[in-house]
Amino acid sequence: MIMLEIKGKWVIIMGDMLQPGKCITTSQTISTLAMRIGILGAGQLGRMLAQAGEPLGHTFTFYDVAPGEATTGIGKTIVGGFSDLEKLEAFARECDVITYEFENVPCESAQFLATIRPVYPPPSALEISQDRVREKTFVSELGLATPQFEPASTKDELIKACDTVGYPCIIKTRRLGYDGKGQARATDRESLERIWEELGEAPLIVEALVSFSRELSVIGARDTKGTIAVYPLAHNTHVQGILHRTEIPAPSLTPATLESAQSIISTIMEALDYVGVLTVELFDVEGTLCINELAPRVHNSGHASIDSMKASQFENHIRAITSIPLGSVEPLDRAVMYNIVGTLPPLRKVLELPRTKVHLYNKSERAGRKIGHITILDPTPESEAIIIEALAAR
Amino acid sequence: MIMLEIKGKWVIIMGDMLQPGKCITTSQTISTLAMRIGILGAGQLGRMLAQAGEPLGHTFTFYDVAPGEATTGIGKTIVGGFSDLEKLEAFARECDVITYEFENVPCESAQFLATIRPVYPPPSALEISQDRVREKTFVSELGLATPQFEPASTKDELIKACDTVGYPCIIKTRRLGYDGKGQARATDRESLERIWEELGEAPLIVEALVSFSRELSVIGARDTKGTIAVYPLAHNTHVQGILHRTEIPAPSLTPATLESAQSIISTIMEALDYVGVLTVELFDVEGTLCINELAPRVHNSGHASIDSMKASQFENHIRAITSIPLGSVEPLDRAVMYNIVGTLPPLRKVLELPRTKVHLYNKSERAGRKIGHITILDPTPESEAIIIEALAAR
Repeated sequence: MIMLEIKGKWVIIMGDMLQPGKCITTSQTISTLAMRIGILGAGQLGRMLAQAGEPLGHTFTFYDVAPGEATTGIGKTIVGGFSDLEKLEAFARECDVITYEFENVPCESAQFLATIRPVYPPPSALEISQDRVREKTFVSELGLATPQFEPASTKDELIKACDTVGYPCIIKTRRLGYDGKGQARATDRESLERIWEELGEAPLIVEALVSFSRELSVIGARDTKGTIAVYPLAHNTHVQGILHRTEIPAPSLTPATLESAQSIISTIMEALDYVGVLTVELFDVEGTLCINELAPRVHNSGHASIDSMKASQFENHIRAITSIPLGSVEPLDRAVMYNIVGTLPPLRKVLELPRTKVHLYNKSERAGRKIGHITILDPTPESEAIIIEALAAR
Repeated sequence: MIMLEIKGKWVIIMGDMLQPGKCITTSQTISTLAMRIGILGAGQLGRMLAQAGEPLGHTFTFYDVAPGEATTGIGKTIVGGFSDLEKLEAFARECDVITYEFENVPCESAQFLATIRPVYPPPSALEISQDRVREKTFVSELGLATPQFEPASTKDELIKACDTVGYPCIIKTRRLGYDGKGQARATDRESLERIWEELGEAPLIVEALVSFSRELSVIGARDTKGTIAVYPLAHNTHVQGILHRTEIPAPSLTPATLESAQSIISTIMEALDYVGVLTVELFDVEGTLCINELAPRVHNSGHASIDSMKASQFENHIRAITSIPLGSVEPLDRAVMYNIVGTLPPLRKVLELPRTKVHLYNKSERAGRKIGHITILDPTPESEAIIIEALAAR
C-alpha cells in the first residue's frame, strides 16, 4: 500500500497499480479509503474485524485451511494450506493489505506474503510470539518483568530446568499452545516423566509459578506513524484455561500499575515497530506487573470494546493497518464480558437485560468452543447474577 | 412467528413448520434466536438493520425494485415489483418475519405479505404515514398538536384551502414526498397556479406555516409485549430539505418538553398497536411540541445511536420485531451526526479525529444522495469545525 498526497487529497495506490514504469494518473484517485483487506484465519476475530471494517467501506478476504463458519457471509474465504505458496500468492494479489487473526500462522507464510503486499502486524511479532522461549527472552532483554524460565528440549533438560526453576512450576510446549492447552503443572521431579509424554515429547519451556493476585491484560494499538493508544486494563478470569469473564476497566488499580502497563506495551510495540493491535497478558503481583504472554492481534479480553469504548479494538486494528490515525480508546461505560463456550445459554433470558449485548459467531455448538460473547454495560451484581445463572442453565 | 415455552426453553417455530396437523417435536427446537428477516427496501436503513442483527445470528433478505448497492454483500436481494404477488410470496416464504425500511412501500403489498408472515410495524402505520392528510387527521384525533391543515384535490380546492389556512403556507403532495421533495411555499394566491403545476396536479395538503424555533425528532421503540422505550430527543438541522446535522440529546430541553415528547410518541404507538421503531418529527414552538410528520421506521436522526446509545435504533427495531425485550436507550455519550450527501469528504481528514465514527453505505456518489454519515462522540466546537470544514472541502 502506498499513499500519495496530490493537491491535498490522499490517493491510495492499490497493489495492482504498482507495476514498474506504470504511470499513475489522478483519474485513478480513489476518493474513499476502501481497501481490500486479507485476513489469515477465518474465526470469530476475523469476523469481528470485518464487521468493524465494513462501515469504513473495506471488503474482506479470508485465508484458512478450511472454510470458517464464523466468516460465512462476511467475506470471501480462500481455502488453502499455509505452505501452498501458489494459493497464498493468489490470495495476496486479491488484497491491498494483509493481517492475521491468530498467532499460529506459520511465520514463513507471513514473510512470503510480505514480499507481495504489506503484512501488519510485522511478521517478526508473529515469530516472537509463536515461541514461548523467544518471547520471554525478547521481553527480558527489553528489561521487562516475566516469570523465571528455562528452555528444555529433552527429558534430561526438562529435569534440569525444573530443578533450576524450582517446584511447583509450569511446563508448556514452546509452540502452539492456546486456551490452556499444551501445559502442565509439575509438583515434583517424579511427575516429569508423565508430563514429558503428555506434552508430546516436544520442545518445552519451564516457567516459575508466579503467585499473582489476579490476571490482567492490556491492549494497545500503534498506527503507521508510530502513534500509540492503550485501552484501559482488563481483569480476566479463566475457567479450565479458557477466558470466562473480563471486567474492563479493571477495578482497584493504582496510577502506578496503570503507568506500568502503558510503559510495558509501548516498549514492546516500539521495539517491534509494530502496526496494529497487540495484547499483553499480565500477572498482577500485588500491584507489580509480570508479563505472561503476548498476542500480536485483537484479543478475547478486548471484546467488550465493541460496545463499551469509543473505538473498539477491531476498529483500531483496521484503522492502523490501513494507515488511518487511531480512534479514541476512552471507555463509554464500564463493562463485563462473558464468553459463551460450548453451548448457547437461553438467549431470551440474557436479552431481557436491557444493557446486555449479545455477539454470536455463527459457529455450531461444540464442547470447549468459543461460540459467542455477552457484554453487560454498566454492570451491577444483580445483572451479572442473571447472566451467570443463564450461562449455568446450559 | 410463533414461540412456545417448552420446559423453560423458548422454541421459535419457523413459518415452514406451520403446516396444519404437523407435529412439532422438541428435536426441532431452535436454540438460537436466529431468524430469517425480510426487509422491504434495500437502502442504507436496511444495511444498518442487517449490521445490527448479524451479531444476534439473524440473516437478511431484501426485496426491492432494483438491486441495492447499500445491501450488496450484506444479505440476499430479491428484485421484483411491489405488486408482483408471486415474487412477494416467494420472498415471504424465505422469511420468518418481515419489516420495511421506507414508508412508500405500497400498503397493499405489506397487507398481502401479512397474510403469509408477521409484518412489523403493522401495515396500518404504513397506510397512515403514506398520506399526509390521513396522518394529520390521525394525530389530531388523538388530541395531539399538528399544524392547521386542509386537503385539496383540485386547483379550486387549493385556492380555497390556502385562503382558509392563510398566507404564507406550505403546500405538499399528499403522498410520496421525502427530503423536501414534493413541496412548495405559497406566499400569495397568485403563486398557486404555478405551484399546482409544479407539484404535478396531484392531491395536496395545505399546511399552516409554523414559526418554530427548531426542529426536533423523537424515536421510540415498542416490543411485542407493549413495552415502550423512548430515545433522547434529537435536534435536527436541514439544508435544502435534507437532514444535515443532528445533535442528540438535543440541548436546552425542559423536563416538560421531554415529557411531552414521551407522551406524544407513546400515544401514537399505543393507538397503532405498534411493534418496532417509530419516529416523530416535531417543531419546537418555544417549548411546545407540534407534530410535523411520522416515519414508521428507523430514521436518519437516530443514526448516532449506533455509536452513542447502549442499544441503537437498529438493534431495538430488530429486537422488537423478533419478540425480544428492548435494549437500553440510555446515551453513552453526547453526539453530533452529519450526513454525507452527494460526494465523499476527505475521509482521512475526518478520521484524524479520534472520536469520529464514519459509516459509509457502499453507494456511489451522486448529487443529493445520502451516501454515509459521520458521528462525533462527545463533540466540541473545535471537532465540529474540523468536520464542517472537511464536508465543505468537497
